[in-house]
Amino acid sequence: MRIDFLTLFPEMFHGVLNSSIMKKAQEKEAAEFRVINFREYSDNKHQTVDDYPYGGGAGMVLKPQPVFDAVNAIKKESDSEPKIILVCPQGKTFDQKKAEELADTRHLVFICGHYEGYDERIRQHLVTDEISIGDFVLTGGELPSMVIADSVVRLLPGVLGNEQSPILDSFSSGMLEHPQYTRPADYNGLKVPDILLSGNHRKIDDWRARESLKRTWERRPDLIEKTALTDQQKMWLKEFESTT
Amino acid sequence: MRIDFLTLFPEMFHGVLNSSIMKKAQEKEAAEFRVINFREYSDNKHQTVDDYPYGGGAGMVLKPQPVFDAVNAIKKESDSEPKIILVCPQGKTFDQKKAEELADTRHLVFICGHYEGYDERIRQHLVTDEISIGDFVLTGGELPSMVIADSVVRLLPGVLGNEQSPILDSFSSGMLEHPQYTRPADYNGLKVPDILLSGNHRKIDDWRARESLKRTWERRPDLIEKTALTDQQKMWLKEFESTT
Repeated sequence: MRIDFLTLFPEMFHGVLNSSIMKKAQEKEAAEFRVINFREYSDNKHQTVDDYPYGGGAGMVLKPQPVFDAVNAIKKESDSEPKIILVCPQGKTFDQKKAEELADTRHLVFICGHYEGYDERIRQHLVTDEISIGDFVLTGGELPSMVIADSVVRLLPGVLGNEQSPILDSFSSGMLEHPQYTRPADYNGLKVPDILLSGNHRKIDDWRARESLKRTWERRPDLIEKTALTDQQKMWLKEFESTT
Repeated sequence: MRIDFLTLFPEMFHGVLNSSIMKKAQEKEAAEFRVINFREYSDNKHQTVDDYPYGGGAGMVLKPQPVFDAVNAIKKESDSEPKIILVCPQGKTFDQKKAEELADTRHLVFICGHYEGYDERIRQHLVTDEISIGDFVLTGGELPSMVIADSVVRLLPGVLGNEQSPILDSFSSGMLEHPQYTRPADYNGLKVPDILLSGNHRKIDDWRARESLKRTWERRPDLIEKTALTDQQKMWLKEFESTT
């Protein structure tokens, strides 16, 4: 997979793209990244990329020309039809299903605005996917683009080794993860539940499934509504409800 | 405000903390950041920070000792009661209201796990806030911690200058932002709506309010349900509904 980031702040990417999973994905040749300053595509001598909004108002708006030209240059040399992603609050909320969809794509291009809004023509005539990572305001599209890229890259074949199991993969099963404990069994008086020290793996699996359901029921009942429950899970739910 | 990031990948932070809004916040002395490798707090000679999960299973789990010791050292020298934030899929979903709450705090500490899960005792006995940025799986807590910090820091007094208006602040008004346009009025045949070139500011304001409502109605009806609408907005909604 190839991922291009179009940004006015290329220096924000270096540390993230050269550490951890992103570094590993490049070493394993599962992904290659390019960070492109789209200011270089500005066709005016001052290399401006933004201008005042028509109709007045505070703030600046990203002009169509530099963004169109940068994206079109990328498309021209791509060997596939890249997804052109605009990260913005108006987009569809990102989730694991979208991550899986993007992981099936050969080429992603992220347009990262910064401070500015986007000229609507970019949104309507250039972009294929508008994505929001949540209902909060950020200074630019750089961090959310890196977030999306991380969630996608780790799904590519060969990237996650055995040492990095999907232990945090709460959303793959539809439920939140059960509690985890490691040594020591007693840390300053804080103890690991006896069941986990019992060696009875059937009971441990049951305990984990029940705790996973309980945590989801307490914290994210919306996830339970979306999941087809087993009879066992339905019985546990009745227990939780009867004890409150 | 002081923000500490506890991480095993300190190199991921440099580019982000020294660019853009984060850089500005430091220059204006509104925020100071520290990136701490909590491996340095490990009390064993191999400086391990994780161990196998009790009860079996794939993946490693962060041990309580290094994290407790790192956080306790920070708390000891803090002049306030810091919020200890665990970024994890099990947390409460982050939103603009939470960003505003955190912006009222003097000291934030982010615990960034990576690959591993967390020993449950960290969650139960050390952490004050568990936050998730969304229903997707990431490799570590570093990127979401930077996302949260960005959304908080830009709310601190004096950080956002006039040149960076809250133009993207879709969630402050409860509605998504209206379309924005800048020059040229005609870009390769793609035109700016006439109304924005009219100079009639009352009509422009009306158009923007209507477009903002329309976009929200089309894309995020859940936001409209949470907002007290004006009579004008209710009339517009009836118009939208009657034309579909």
